[in-house]
Amino acid sequence: MNAYRRLDECPSFAELLAASPDSAARAEAFRAALDGDRVRSRELAAGGGLSWNWAAMDVLDHELPLLSRLAAEQECVAKYRELASGAVMNTGEKRMVLHHLARGVVAERPVHAGKDLRSFYEGERERFSEFADRVRSGALRGATGKRFATVVQIGIGGSDLGPRALHIALSAWAKAAGRLGLEARFVSNVDPDDANATLDGLDLESTLFVLVSKSGTTQETLANESLAKAKLEKAGLPSGKHLVAVTSETSPLARNPGYLDSFYIDDFIGGRYSASSAVGGVVLSLAFGPETFAEFLEGAHEADRLALEPDPMKNPALLDALLGVLQRNVLGRPTVAVLPYSQALSRFAAHLQQLDMESNGKRVDRSGAPVAYATGPVVFGEPGTNGQHSFYQLLHQGTDTVPLEFVGFLEGQTSGDVVVEGSTSRRKLAANLAAQIVAFALGKDDSDANRRFPGGRPSSLIHGRALDPRALGALLAHFENKVMFQGFLWNLNSFDQEGVQLGKVLTRQVLGDGPLGSALEAYAGMLGARP
Amino acid sequence: MNAYRRLDECPSFAELLAASPDSAARAEAFRAALDGDRVRSRELAAGGGLSWNWAAMDVLDHELPLLSRLAAEQECVAKYRELASGAVMNTGEKRMVLHHLARGVVAERPVHAGKDLRSFYEGERERFSEFADRVRSGALRGATGKRFATVVQIGIGGSDLGPRALHIALSAWAKAAGRLGLEARFVSNVDPDDANATLDGLDLESTLFVLVSKSGTTQETLANESLAKAKLEKAGLPSGKHLVAVTSETSPLARNPGYLDSFYIDDFIGGRYSASSAVGGVVLSLAFGPETFAEFLEGAHEADRLALEPDPMKNPALLDALLGVLQRNVLGRPTVAVLPYSQALSRFAAHLQQLDMESNGKRVDRSGAPVAYATGPVVFGEPGTNGQHSFYQLLHQGTDTVPLEFVGFLEGQTSGDVVVEGSTSRRKLAANLAAQIVAFALGKDDSDANRRFPGGRPSSLIHGRALDPRALGALLAHFENKVMFQGFLWNLNSFDQEGVQLGKVLTRQVLGDGPLGSALEAYAGMLGARP
Repeated sequence: MNAYRRLDECPSFAELLAASPDSAARAEAFRAALDGDRVRSRELAAGGGLSWNWAAMDVLDHELPLLSRLAAEQECVAKYRELASGAVMNTGEKRMVLHHLARGVVAERPVHAGKDLRSFYEGERERFSEFADRVRSGALRGATGKRFATVVQIGIGGSDLGPRALHIALSAWAKAAGRLGLEARFVSNVDPDDANATLDGLDLESTLFVLVSKSGTTQETLANESLAKAKLEKAGLPSGKHLVAVTSETSPLARNPGYLDSFYIDDFIGGRYSASSAVGGVVLSLAFGPETFAEFLEGAHEADRLALEPDPMKNPALLDALLGVLQRNVLGRPTVAVLPYSQALSRFAAHLQQLDMESNGKRVDRSGAPVAYATGPVVFGEPGTNGQHSFYQLLHQGTDTVPLEFVGFLEGQTSGDVVVEGSTSRRKLAANLAAQIVAFALGKDDSDANRRFPGGRPSSLIHGRALDPRALGALLAHFENKVMFQGFLWNLNSFDQEGVQLGKVLTRQVLGDGPLGSALEAYAGMLGARP
Repeated sequence: MNAYRRLDECPSFAELLAASPDSAARAEAFRAALDGDRVRSRELAAGGGLSWNWAAMDVLDHELPLLSRLAAEQECVAKYRELASGAVMNTGEKRMVLHHLARGVVAERPVHAGKDLRSFYEGERERFSEFADRVRSGALRGATGKRFATVVQIGIGGSDLGPRALHIALSAWAKAAGRLGLEARFVSNVDPDDANATLDGLDLESTLFVLVSKSGTTQETLANESLAKAKLEKAGLPSGKHLVAVTSETSPLARNPGYLDSFYIDDFIGGRYSASSAVGGVVLSLAFGPETFAEFLEGAHEADRLALEPDPMKNPALLDALLGVLQRNVLGRPTVAVLPYSQALSRFAAHLQQLDMESNGKRVDRSGAPVAYATGPVVFGEPGTNGQHSFYQLLHQGTDTVPLEFVGFLEGQTSGDVVVEGSTSRRKLAANLAAQIVAFALGKDDSDANRRFPGGRPSSLIHGRALDPRALGALLAHFENKVMFQGFLWNLNSFDQEGVQLGKVLTRQVLGDGPLGSALEAYAGMLGARP
């Protein structure tokens, strides 16, 4: 049994605080240390052919053993083993936390009520893989006998952001690899303008809807299902031939004759961690083929195994987590930017935003006691080079320092390129990324203060040959494991989300007929929420 | 001539700091004050049929006169008049700042080198309106005589984010209004995967490209133009019949026989403020018709005129700016979330991110002296209700307080809706928004600390009947003017972006053949940026 203590109860944390120089001294030491040798040596394999490079993080050499001690004091890797083996790590909801198991067995094989859960997840994967093959081959067709050409996933939050980001990430890759199947779209918002615009112009005869809700009671998802069903009905199509469900076995959607088929998840894989389960698997297998999804899982599993390494200096997700705690709790930096130099990752930051902020945006520790230190940061980001022409001004010259997480690849997913002024677009993309890392780190002096770059602004870099399914799986798992380790360091339950409940309660009150507080009544009236 | 002084030289700012209670006392006073009367009374017309409501901002009554004094000490409205009348407010680059003039004359009519600039902007608008009409009617066609059906805007940063966000915002509206013309797409990233995926499957015979670069030298845009030209050539189409340019009159793209036509902007409208100029106007007029763009400008101009109001308590953009400075500099809150409850505004936050962070992410004042206070915050956001299922956990229960900017509308842009459990989706959307504002502000106690909501979390709300072109114009101008006023309060030059230069310089070094520093050489080699 591991011991649980708060970050500020760790002796190494107090030492980190005491040993931290002022920001000017840190920046100077960092700038002086960053050279080619450091770039080549501060790099770890991250799975899926990726490497994680931390040369441009502004950690000082004397802090590294303290961070290693912090990881040991918080027993991070032991807790990960415990989690992956089926301990009840979601303490508030009293649930196991098993998203790793959807990718492979990391430690002990978890069993629940006599059920081998790896077999359950794999069994569902086999079922939806077979289903996807039948749809893709044309063996299974819509009500009028037309082949399915489009899949629309209806889900929100974890049932939307991850699958959507992964779908965008692999679309061009799948096309080049000859694996493109159904065209996928996503509907999430309860705003009916979302569903109406997304479904607009679709040939419903060849459209398959995937309804994703673990509980089967998500307000937005049920509303959008009704919108989709109304459109199917209007087109004279029986919805049961055009809808499948991804849900838990205890939900009202399970084994429901209103669906063509149902694929199951359980309470041990939280929404924001569910891209590796049927939540992501059904739509990605329909779009890109089951083998693509299998490769994605292999990449993620490889990263999961790397995260078992006990030495933080050899464990990329753990070291990333430790450096993040240094940024947040020693250096007081409240935000993190995710900056992939790959258009295919255009919505990856939006997924990490949920993953990180919903997991660790907490003010009580896992036992329910308030913490006296900062926890999860605000996470934001857009792809480079786009961001360079947007918010990088603040990153370079703003008054706050924002730690940066860069991602880059040697090769693109598509083949068209041109040489302009002596270089291809791909080479320009790579040159911009290299230049930004160094510009942030080293800065530049100038007699005009407005043209002065303070430097000392830290970044890490995940890079690899190409963004293929394995690399994408490892990329996602790296961040999931980083967030998990940070939860251990902060002593949080990273797997519940009680902070979303009050809004739900008040929404139900507004939609009911009862009396409301005067402020809520005024807002609800102003916005048209009361009859 | 107005006086320029730093925020910390203002007596009212010192008083604000001295008079600020601790955060618990502030939260308690705020929760106690928020009732229906406050919601109804703290509201100002914001133009375009919109209202801006600040009832749920946690400003205390004794702070309001101090904020008014601060606005007076910084002469905010007088500086706005000066700016709109053609003063050289972009001090570093020695340029006027005239984006308001693209919407209408706000103060004195600016003249430059004998040229009446309002006539210039209007003249260009008339030219591109006529051009758009000819394209939309089929009078002007592609090289093979096919009607243009698609327009692809090639631009980055301000030439992309604003026009793209506005295009998404009005697509469903234009369809319902019968104003839909060309289908618009956007290419921005130098990553060729962007252009290849966006142009994939396009019928080039019916595609018109709009190349947008003020200088005519933007690396990404020229690279993507070459990619587009290569595709046109491969299809046997003369690019000169399929390309128009939006650029300055002194750029290499101006009056260039390689383009079907060119529309002009000038150095007095910065990229992030250029959506109201030909940068946004050409593509939006092609997509939705010139009258739609004209209505958008009218809404923006209305908001611009409201921003002339000298009393901050009656000037929504100015009061929003002042409350933001209170959040940032008195309460020490480093981020702002933009949360539109409208799927049509799905990329609006990405545009505001550039607008705000590139304008005010500065560490020196307008005279080049370093400032000793925090300036522009990190801005991020996603539409509600999606965000509720993503990062709202941190907003409700994280350790940092994030001020929120909500947007909502009584009506949607599309007509399909369904009743589920007694309410339409639109009513659910409105109920969620009302519930969130109150949940953030009032919180909820609970014996279980994990289910406790501290409340005291501030928000503002812009709302109106529907998101139509006028409302969208006013919405954009409100935020532009807020950012401008914050620049005055912080004594910044909000109109340059020297922080993007170092990256450009180092990129050119990487792409050249010369020697590099050892860290840059190592990164460039690792990423494939060196031959």
